[in-house]
Amino acid sequence: MARIMTTQAADLEARIGARLELAGVAVRRAGRARPGIPDHLLTTDATALVKRDDIDVVIEVIGGIEPARGLILGAFDNGASVVTANKALLAADGAALHAAASRAGVDLYYEAAVAAAIPLVRPPRALAGDKVNRVLGIVNGTTNFILDKMDSTGAGYSEALEEATALGYAEADPTADVEGFDAAAKAAILAGIAFHTRVTAADVFREGITEVTAADIASAKAMGCVVKLLAICERSADGVSVTARVHPAMIPLSHPLASVRGAYNAVFVEADAAGQLMFYGPGAGGAPTASAVLGDLVAVCRNKLAGSTGPGESAYAQLTVNPMDAVVTRYHVSLDVADKAGVLAQVATVFAEHGVSIDTVRQTGREGDASLVVVTHRATDAALSATVAALRSLDHVRGVASIMRVEGE
Amino acid sequence: MARIMTTQAADLEARIGARLELAGVAVRRAGRARPGIPDHLLTTDATALVKRDDIDVVIEVIGGIEPARGLILGAFDNGASVVTANKALLAADGAALHAAASRAGVDLYYEAAVAAAIPLVRPPRALAGDKVNRVLGIVNGTTNFILDKMDSTGAGYSEALEEATALGYAEADPTADVEGFDAAAKAAILAGIAFHTRVTAADVFREGITEVTAADIASAKAMGCVVKLLAICERSADGVSVTARVHPAMIPLSHPLASVRGAYNAVFVEADAAGQLMFYGPGAGGAPTASAVLGDLVAVCRNKLAGSTGPGESAYAQLTVNPMDAVVTRYHVSLDVADKAGVLAQVATVFAEHGVSIDTVRQTGREGDASLVVVTHRATDAALSATVAALRSLDHVRGVASIMRVEGE
Repeated sequence: MARIMTTQAADLEARIGARLELAGVAVRRAGRARPGIPDHLLTTDATALVKRDDIDVVIEVIGGIEPARGLILGAFDNGASVVTANKALLAADGAALHAAASRAGVDLYYEAAVAAAIPLVRPPRALAGDKVNRVLGIVNGTTNFILDKMDSTGAGYSEALEEATALGYAEADPTADVEGFDAAAKAAILAGIAFHTRVTAADVFREGITEVTAADIASAKAMGCVVKLLAICERSADGVSVTARVHPAMIPLSHPLASVRGAYNAVFVEADAAGQLMFYGPGAGGAPTASAVLGDLVAVCRNKLAGSTGPGESAYAQLTVNPMDAVVTRYHVSLDVADKAGVLAQVATVFAEHGVSIDTVRQTGREGDASLVVVTHRATDAALSATVAALRSLDHVRGVASIMRVEGE
Repeated sequence: MARIMTTQAADLEARIGARLELAGVAVRRAGRARPGIPDHLLTTDATALVKRDDIDVVIEVIGGIEPARGLILGAFDNGASVVTANKALLAADGAALHAAASRAGVDLYYEAAVAAAIPLVRPPRALAGDKVNRVLGIVNGTTNFILDKMDSTGAGYSEALEEATALGYAEADPTADVEGFDAAAKAAILAGIAFHTRVTAADVFREGITEVTAADIASAKAMGCVVKLLAICERSADGVSVTARVHPAMIPLSHPLASVRGAYNAVFVEADAAGQLMFYGPGAGGAPTASAVLGDLVAVCRNKLAGSTGPGESAYAQLTVNPMDAVVTRYHVSLDVADKAGVLAQVATVFAEHGVSIDTVRQTGREGDASLVVVTHRATDAALSATVAALRSLDHVRGVASIMRVEGE
């Protein structure tokens, strides 16, 4: 980032209308050489740096809650605008940060927080005259790489994770990615922007990809689908509430998100008037993140020179954020059953009793056992959960092999 | 648009921070009922309307050069900001309009001018901290529908155009679309934003799709490609000049633009730090256009309330806009030749003499004749043109069946 600020200095100056000066860089550990950054700009005292009276803008790329939050609030107190890539902090405590920026009359920009260089924070603002009904996103490159690898090679989850780790797509501790925490933070930010309603990470239902099996992927293929970890933010049919969730889901190959391969990210937006839009690009990486941060930096500096600020938080709609139970979607349920007459009738009865309508059933016999794959019509998550609980108690159902939601139709 | 302003009035008010009031609607012909618009707001005197002293923002959706230009300049004179979808005017005379807005201290916004609701004007601004090297766009829905139809059915151009007309995708006079004028205007606007350089429609090389044959499409398929009408804006390798062009081109099926079907639009951007980004959505239609116009309206009103204006024209880079001759790309050349020994050697010699290196040659014999398909490595358009002129004068070359550029690799 500091390197691009130097190499592109003339362009940045022309676009801003004033010269950018790098006032200081706070680092965790002193003594390491930082190519392109003069030694006298380095400090380990971040708190003192954000309080200096010659600072107009603070760029925060530490990540995590503290000390990032304290430093950002310190910058606001000092009258400085902030550009951040910190999705975890925004998803946990965005409202307080926005309020502090607003009180101080400065900007808080965070284009890099959702999917690195893909402009996702500003385009929904271009939809400010429209009504967004649904956002479907592939917002985590690590999990998309793993699922894509499982899809293209038939590998299991562990094998694909190993390859992702070896290639640097997964961290040594991949929990934040594979368990969906990273995607959930992004879902909260996207939902907030899309629905003009405060949504925090705690409001987001979250299920990772660690339980996805090669059999699930094969089953998706048989249906003309692929499995993706989706962040889904939806307005209810009556328009007065929203839901936000992250989980693996099957989507048809014909859906534009199905062709998002490898570590790429994409966000698909459905709006009343605009129709269907998609934004696609690299979701992570140093250079793409730097691009987004510097784009924000140009905007914030232009605002500062104009004596104004950009749009702040828009949370006027205050829609209710419903829990997962209220979500309505389709389900793909795989059951291991005894290969006996009447099993299918028993299973079908349980679905019917819970008001979950069946679209298709496929039964594959094996010696003594059979596998039963049921794809439902749309039903609430609550109804499906009750159905599955009842199925587990049936004598002839040996187990529920997997449950996966079907989206994008 | 007026309808959405009414039905979404509460949301627009909350997002802007003030109530929008529809002050008047200028129409060409009086006497026709306009559902949702009170009669007393209708006028046929647009000039008087934009000069009224209670007008803050003028929305221009007339299209074409005049009277749109005069009305927009009149609005600026009157201190009103303007939101427009007028690509032809912006591509012809954007600099003068931006200058007039800047003098008046008001906004000129035009998100709807490029691809209706796909946010294309603002996202490149999110790349303000980056260096855009190439923009490849499918920016005309009519031609994409026709080419997609030819690809999926094997139909010829005329047959596909007929279907597009019958379905309402092509106008009775399709010239502006099929000859690439519409796409060229959009290419000029995109190039200006991407390269911070003034580019007008006159700077854009333009070739339509009327000469594309079923044989070209089949030939593309054989190479694992599809034919698309592309708007291509490129920075030269040395960074000091740019080119902008619109023409049919073959792109590999693996390229994200290859899967943009029907009347959809998409713009693919390559930037130094951000990498490859794509924006996808409906490129035309009343509702998507209304969405983009109203999004701009919200932004312009917010600026007005804050006493500021948004970014104006950024043309500081003043890069040279080179003509087509300077463009470097690959070519797919189909020749009808006599099926005689030595023809291939003759043809290969002509390419070599002009410095155009051959990648692959495919020869298909017919009775007495043969077809020769040559795919080149990268060469300038000037070198290719000279090669083709020389090929035409060869005894054994009966004709040059087609020349198509190969992009996206």
